[in-house]
Amino acid sequence: MPDALQAALNKIDDQAPQYADDLMEFVRVQSVSTDAAHRVDIDAAAEWVAARLRRAGADSVAVMPSAGHPVVVARWQVDDDLPTVVIYGHYDVQPPEPLELWKSPPFEPEIRDGKIYGRGASDDKAGVLIAIQAVEASAAATGRPPINVTFLLEGEEEIGSPNLPDFLAEHRDLLAADLAISADGGIFGVGIPSLTVGSRGLAGVEVAVHGANADLHSGMYGGAVANPAMALAHILSSLQAASGEVLVEGFYDDVPVLTPELRAAVAAIPDEDDVELAALGLSDWWGDERFTAQERRLLRPTLEVNGMWGGYQGAGIKTVLPSEAQAKITCRLVVGQDPDEIISALKRHIERVAPGGVTVTVTPLAGKGRAYQMPLDHPVLELAGAAMGAAYGREPFPVWTGGTVPVAEQFYSVLGTWCLYYAFGEPDNGLHAPNEFFRVSTLKQGTQATTRLFFAIAANPGALQDGHSD
Amino acid sequence: MPDALQAALNKIDDQAPQYADDLMEFVRVQSVSTDAAHRVDIDAAAEWVAARLRRAGADSVAVMPSAGHPVVVARWQVDDDLPTVVIYGHYDVQPPEPLELWKSPPFEPEIRDGKIYGRGASDDKAGVLIAIQAVEASAAATGRPPINVTFLLEGEEEIGSPNLPDFLAEHRDLLAADLAISADGGIFGVGIPSLTVGSRGLAGVEVAVHGANADLHSGMYGGAVANPAMALAHILSSLQAASGEVLVEGFYDDVPVLTPELRAAVAAIPDEDDVELAALGLSDWWGDERFTAQERRLLRPTLEVNGMWGGYQGAGIKTVLPSEAQAKITCRLVVGQDPDEIISALKRHIERVAPGGVTVTVTPLAGKGRAYQMPLDHPVLELAGAAMGAAYGREPFPVWTGGTVPVAEQFYSVLGTWCLYYAFGEPDNGLHAPNEFFRVSTLKQGTQATTRLFFAIAANPGALQDGHSD
Repeated sequence: MPDALQAALNKIDDQAPQYADDLMEFVRVQSVSTDAAHRVDIDAAAEWVAARLRRAGADSVAVMPSAGHPVVVARWQVDDDLPTVVIYGHYDVQPPEPLELWKSPPFEPEIRDGKIYGRGASDDKAGVLIAIQAVEASAAATGRPPINVTFLLEGEEEIGSPNLPDFLAEHRDLLAADLAISADGGIFGVGIPSLTVGSRGLAGVEVAVHGANADLHSGMYGGAVANPAMALAHILSSLQAASGEVLVEGFYDDVPVLTPELRAAVAAIPDEDDVELAALGLSDWWGDERFTAQERRLLRPTLEVNGMWGGYQGAGIKTVLPSEAQAKITCRLVVGQDPDEIISALKRHIERVAPGGVTVTVTPLAGKGRAYQMPLDHPVLELAGAAMGAAYGREPFPVWTGGTVPVAEQFYSVLGTWCLYYAFGEPDNGLHAPNEFFRVSTLKQGTQATTRLFFAIAANPGALQDGHSD
Repeated sequence: MPDALQAALNKIDDQAPQYADDLMEFVRVQSVSTDAAHRVDIDAAAEWVAARLRRAGADSVAVMPSAGHPVVVARWQVDDDLPTVVIYGHYDVQPPEPLELWKSPPFEPEIRDGKIYGRGASDDKAGVLIAIQAVEASAAATGRPPINVTFLLEGEEEIGSPNLPDFLAEHRDLLAADLAISADGGIFGVGIPSLTVGSRGLAGVEVAVHGANADLHSGMYGGAVANPAMALAHILSSLQAASGEVLVEGFYDDVPVLTPELRAAVAAIPDEDDVELAALGLSDWWGDERFTAQERRLLRPTLEVNGMWGGYQGAGIKTVLPSEAQAKITCRLVVGQDPDEIISALKRHIERVAPGGVTVTVTPLAGKGRAYQMPLDHPVLELAGAAMGAAYGREPFPVWTGGTVPVAEQFYSVLGTWCLYYAFGEPDNGLHAPNEFFRVSTLKQGTQATTRLFFAIAANPGALQDGHSD
């Protein structure tokens, strides 16, 4: 082990006892981004993390305005010849409600049984601090980290990062890096490390079907005026076979064939089917049988009716012929699928199948995003795996999120760098729920893993050169 | 003209000036049947109408208990050899809300422009009084009406007549008659008389589709857990072709072929399509093109989704995979179709097409009823047409209601008598709406028509002997 790494690990051993105090101080700042009443706390959290970065020895720290909440940017510009990483995280948190379900107040953190309880303890204040602690520790030997580091910490993640793409584009030069690292995310299980290598995209539409200008008496008009609820049922059922296959023309056109490598990686994810199905009250998975359930959940595109409604929803009978019916439909997308093209395909399909006697309107839903998939053979994954394995005593394996996480894809498409998820939240941390917590021990373990990654990158700068911008 | 009829018409001329006062007194009784707070008014209305029947000279008047509100039964038993009619009406009324839309208070009737405004003025207090006035007038010459008359006036019509079938069955002997006459109903237009000869039946089910035991994240489970909203769309769309034809197996099995006579009668109903379509905001009728729009509205069975719902109905995007979805479906039925068999056919169909991965429950809806169709060549229709024609100066034509009116069918199936609709409400009377009214002139015209009908029946007793119980 190089001396500098050993010095860093020693420093972590020294400083780890303070990590919990730091996190608790950070959690006390009530940086709820969705609530305008907390705007002052948002600013306070930005200042708190800026001060922490200064204490860690950053060359420059700026609390920068955006169209929304401020973005904290900090830099360690060690040497232009060294690789540069840009580390992403967020200082804002979810609202704490319902308050009555918290065992200790959400913004008065408390340690119980080795866990720090408080809103944002895991998501993402621990993640931000682990990354800062790692840079700090990695400077132990020489006073400087072994690579150039930029921090980009936003305050709007919990409200969908509406201003992040513009901020990235505007500050492209400032944020230029060989690799992005997301300090927001998590691992497979408690003590079971993993590396998230992909997420699905999202696109959706709202469908409104209108008939007569008012709800009608089914006895007076039934049979002679088209029923928008039935028309909507025809439209929706035309979108997907009962088997699960999506029937929208062009939907699968840009979906890549699953490689044997991807299928093998997904198959290697530990199987928790029985536990999951029991929790859902289901006897088996459902869907397109050409793919395994895990493949359908992680690597295949989907189409879901998120909601639909029309006519009478009360108790008993009401013989109304509804004047309108509506539905919301969203698709999870895979790499290759363009959200705008999927919205267009949905619109074309729905307009084509719309039955007579009704007017059909298709409106795109806001919130679209592209899928993200890191190449499984990207060399940085091996470095990251080894560093995490050394800290956890167990090698991580690749995992995916079936949901949509815009950040990685935005770094990829705006800044031209792959984004490595390197974060340590555990599935039991209660993200977005009452009694969120983060393990004290994981603060140290995550700092060790991240520090090891910095040194591994410094020793293998070529591993970052496989970005798509080459 | 026989002397007795002339005397009756003269008496109507004498008494007509008091008809409006009587109706206004009756309207002042706030007999809202759906509101328990008005129970005292329900009893008062029963007593009011009983007193009015005594004043008209009934041999016996009884306010009889039922499982719900009292039923008023009155009899003129003139001669066992004369034909007997049982006259149906109701003394209860709809709630008057919204009160702010009434120009004069709903229970403080007021005459404006020859119209008596008040809740229940048309539905059905005028109808009840017209029939009583006609019996009273028809006794002018001899002190007794020319036929035997039984009145059956209920107080639960506006809440669906839940206790009427049992009351009819329990008092079958007391109510035995050669013909039932409904004093509840109306005519085609102001000054345009018609005779309602049929109504459609009703049967319906509620469908509930369940998937997982909670709403799920579509990113985590989309593609691997069946979507109940989509499953419901598949079920609903399988029930009916986009053309309007019902696809439920057995649905049309007992539907009689439309006879040329029925088709001709429906075609002869004056066409108001342009006005109706414009009011509905539609450019054309819709539906099964093998039949005219009027036939589809009056003589053909239908299937309607009255309501459906599942998942997220709020603004914007919510990428949920709903745990359940539901729909209410009702069918209008024609003579020959049995509501219970239609419910069974729906249940069988839905269970057969139910997609995998979900649990589907089909529950019959309360409120079913059979269709009713009087033979167009029943001789009493000719008598009724001539009597109404003499009063209106214009012959009535047969019409249908596409809705479901259980009373006529119940007289037919429980008492074994055809039920003749003989009532004078006009389409502009504002039934169930604010500013309900009845025309002062129609009080007299209806009384004349009904009186003429009594004498016509007395002169042609054989015309009543075509009941289905022969």
